[in-house]
Amino acid sequence: MMREIPGIPYRFDDPELLKLALTHRSADKVNNERLEFLGDSILSAAVTSRLYELKPDNNEGELSRLRTRVVRGDTLASLAAGLKLGDYIMLGEGEMKSGGFNRDSILADALEAVFGAIYLDGGYTSCAAAILHVCEPVIASLPSANELKDPKTRLQEWAQARGHALPVYTLESEEGPPHRKQFRVLCTLNDLDISVSGSGSSRQKAEQSSADATLKAVSDKSGK
Amino acid sequence: MMREIPGIPYRFDDPELLKLALTHRSADKVNNERLEFLGDSILSAAVTSRLYELKPDNNEGELSRLRTRVVRGDTLASLAAGLKLGDYIMLGEGEMKSGGFNRDSILADALEAVFGAIYLDGGYTSCAAAILHVCEPVIASLPSANELKDPKTRLQEWAQARGHALPVYTLESEEGPPHRKQFRVLCTLNDLDISVSGSGSSRQKAEQSSADATLKAVSDKSGK
Repeated sequence: MMREIPGIPYRFDDPELLKLALTHRSADKVNNERLEFLGDSILSAAVTSRLYELKPDNNEGELSRLRTRVVRGDTLASLAAGLKLGDYIMLGEGEMKSGGFNRDSILADALEAVFGAIYLDGGYTSCAAAILHVCEPVIASLPSANELKDPKTRLQEWAQARGHALPVYTLESEEGPPHRKQFRVLCTLNDLDISVSGSGSSRQKAEQSSADATLKAVSDKSGK
Repeated sequence: MMREIPGIPYRFDDPELLKLALTHRSADKVNNERLEFLGDSILSAAVTSRLYELKPDNNEGELSRLRTRVVRGDTLASLAAGLKLGDYIMLGEGEMKSGGFNRDSILADALEAVFGAIYLDGGYTSCAAAILHVCEPVIASLPSANELKDPKTRLQEWAQARGHALPVYTLESEEGPPHRKQFRVLCTLNDLDISVSGSGSSRQKAEQSSADATLKAVSDKSGK
């Protein structure tokens, strides 16, 4: 009976727990759904704790956005795929034929369930270490506090830091049928004589897009 | 400097952490918001783990609803009030004058921040023990797996277990103006010759209310 998954640094005392973690509900009434629920909460605690120490300059809103990037389904699914977790998951016949072992949600859920099983088998500290080992590549490539800010905020801070007037946003146009409107907004830095436009499916999105383009314009200028 | 809060079984090595946990954002730029974010995730993990072991018959959906009852804001606020946490929280002048130390969200957030501080000071195991000590009264009074089910589900299971025909729901009346409609539904157990009505602000609510009344009617009967 399997006691470990290559790539996850943990060896089970009780291999039944690992087996349960890899049993999808299509295969058995007794399956990994409760373990997944448990593992999800341990994953969140371990990642939160790591981000708290790694990112002293991020506030709680930023920490929350960073955490979401690590623990959301598509991230976990790609980590699970990297571990070839699909090779070990027990599925019912229907799911097997339809290629369920490659389905993102099944992979992500099974990874969380494996974390839940490690927690039950070896306690929080072992489990958090395994979680952080698996998630390390994602955590290492998270954006910095500043990159997390939206373009309008960054442009405003850029202007304030240099004593420039604040950017002004003007609606240039609003086109298309109600369900597919396109907005075009002009972002102007008056004392720099810079105006750059951006567009989007809402006025807010168009403003952000114009701020982003303006940031690029001013950094191109200052870069030369 | 304070090292513990009466009622929370933990003594801080680093009293600065406890102080930070009790500093509301109205009092200082360096405040308890990041600790609250951390504590929230440790609280959730500790409670999830406890419910997982206490409630082997609940599925993940039920565990999730149980967890929400423990960790939601009003529960935490009343636990914090029981600990007189408001007496220790540092608030800015404005919040102080408006009685902020009694505000639910400030109390709940500070309690989570204290948990976050315990985690940093003493690790997961100490923190989980403190959390479960504080939350024990709430966890002990959680409803059973069966009570968590809605009345229609319980009535259907009751009928199936005894080989009776399934309950039938009939709309009896629909009255009142659009924004304050009242529905009346009759729940019938045909082979038992039992019909009980219930009402509510939607058809679904009226059906649930009639199922609830029917459950009471059949348990009164069988109880005598």
